[in-house]
Amino acid sequence: MTNPTAAMLVIGDEILSGRTRDANMHYLAGQLTQAGIDLTEVRVVSDDAPAIIAAIKALSAAYTHVFTSGGIGPTHDDITADCVAAAFDAPIDVRADAAALLQAHYDSKGQEFNTARQRMARIPDGATLIENPVSIAPGFRMHNVHVMAGVPSIFQAMTASVLPTLTGGAPLLSRTLQVLRGEGDIAGPLGEFAQQHPDLSVGSYPFQTNGAYGANLVVRGKDAALLDAAMIELAQIFA
Amino acid sequence: MTNPTAAMLVIGDEILSGRTRDANMHYLAGQLTQAGIDLTEVRVVSDDAPAIIAAIKALSAAYTHVFTSGGIGPTHDDITADCVAAAFDAPIDVRADAAALLQAHYDSKGQEFNTARQRMARIPDGATLIENPVSIAPGFRMHNVHVMAGVPSIFQAMTASVLPTLTGGAPLLSRTLQVLRGEGDIAGPLGEFAQQHPDLSVGSYPFQTNGAYGANLVVRGKDAALLDAAMIELAQIFA
Repeated sequence: MTNPTAAMLVIGDEILSGRTRDANMHYLAGQLTQAGIDLTEVRVVSDDAPAIIAAIKALSAAYTHVFTSGGIGPTHDDITADCVAAAFDAPIDVRADAAALLQAHYDSKGQEFNTARQRMARIPDGATLIENPVSIAPGFRMHNVHVMAGVPSIFQAMTASVLPTLTGGAPLLSRTLQVLRGEGDIAGPLGEFAQQHPDLSVGSYPFQTNGAYGANLVVRGKDAALLDAAMIELAQIFA
Repeated sequence: MTNPTAAMLVIGDEILSGRTRDANMHYLAGQLTQAGIDLTEVRVVSDDAPAIIAAIKALSAAYTHVFTSGGIGPTHDDITADCVAAAFDAPIDVRADAAALLQAHYDSKGQEFNTARQRMARIPDGATLIENPVSIAPGFRMHNVHVMAGVPSIFQAMTASVLPTLTGGAPLLSRTLQVLRGEGDIAGPLGEFAQQHPDLSVGSYPFQTNGAYGANLVVRGKDAALLDAAMIELAQIFA
């Protein structure tokens, strides 16, 4: 049985200009691997409506799930919700359920629920809200697209709300063997090993430490017993 | 005059599984911004030939330059060079110029230039080599696609070799104003400011520190005088 697949769409000029280093991709990748959902593609696009809409359409059609990060705040450059609505030809406006959450939140802080903040309650018709325990303004799920905030603490909280609702496959397990030889010395036997184990994914990640070459050989698979047996074999090859 | 555009393609299962956190995207983003080349899209795909070939074709057709990271080592999972050749229908084999570089390197170290290492000399016909001062095995440029290593130190050295050969536009300058108010309070006047300055890009990046909300307002443009005048105006709006 193959696992469900996923793609991620990171939205934001600040990532592409080098101003901000994205943290959400690495976080989501680890969470999805544990949940048995295969993250297969990531795209990063700028705050540009046609680019966002095209990416949502392409990824939504190709994968079981899509997760977006960024562009759902109150400022003029936050256009993700409107782009998701456009991608699915859905009407969008300030929605009562999201507005009620935010109204109560700002009332409790004695702050005005002004026009800018009402922007965060723009949710496409037919979408389900995703809880935001950090700053209340919700994300949402529209068809197979999960729209989440770019601020890492909120992204992580929303991921925690969403993942238990999804059906995962078998988590991908991994084992690592560190070999203190250059990749060029091990590539031949490693390639044969990979060919003999078509059910496992075999990767080699070279490093250099104190002038010595080495590689982490990482074997991934869904069956722990099979994986353990393969690692014993691999250790014997490079003993 | 608009700047040349660029896309990046990061290749590697280890990024998508969450095992490794990519460092090259953030590095390249900063370098391209300084060089006046607009990084417009990034994609991350796994070590899967059809996915790599499709991404190279799409990005090469859409942008002035494409930079790839990863998959050019000696092991069985290093398939980038063959995928680039396939994307451009170019023949590929061990090429004499690349093989000579590597042969001399391994001779000097008393190591064998074996079949696995010869894999790193597979270069498509018509490609130009990119120098690798760290570990010799070269990258290459094929049409508008620059194929570089995934190991960050080598990726950075190759970027340094490539960027001076490209024609950039005006570097994108940025100025930041930090405002200690929530985004919801500033979004209205900030949106008006953005509308009044169509030549500038205006972004708002919220943060929370010691329980207080704030935002970095980042204004980007190519004309320093225009940018400075706009920042004085912005400071007055939020004084």
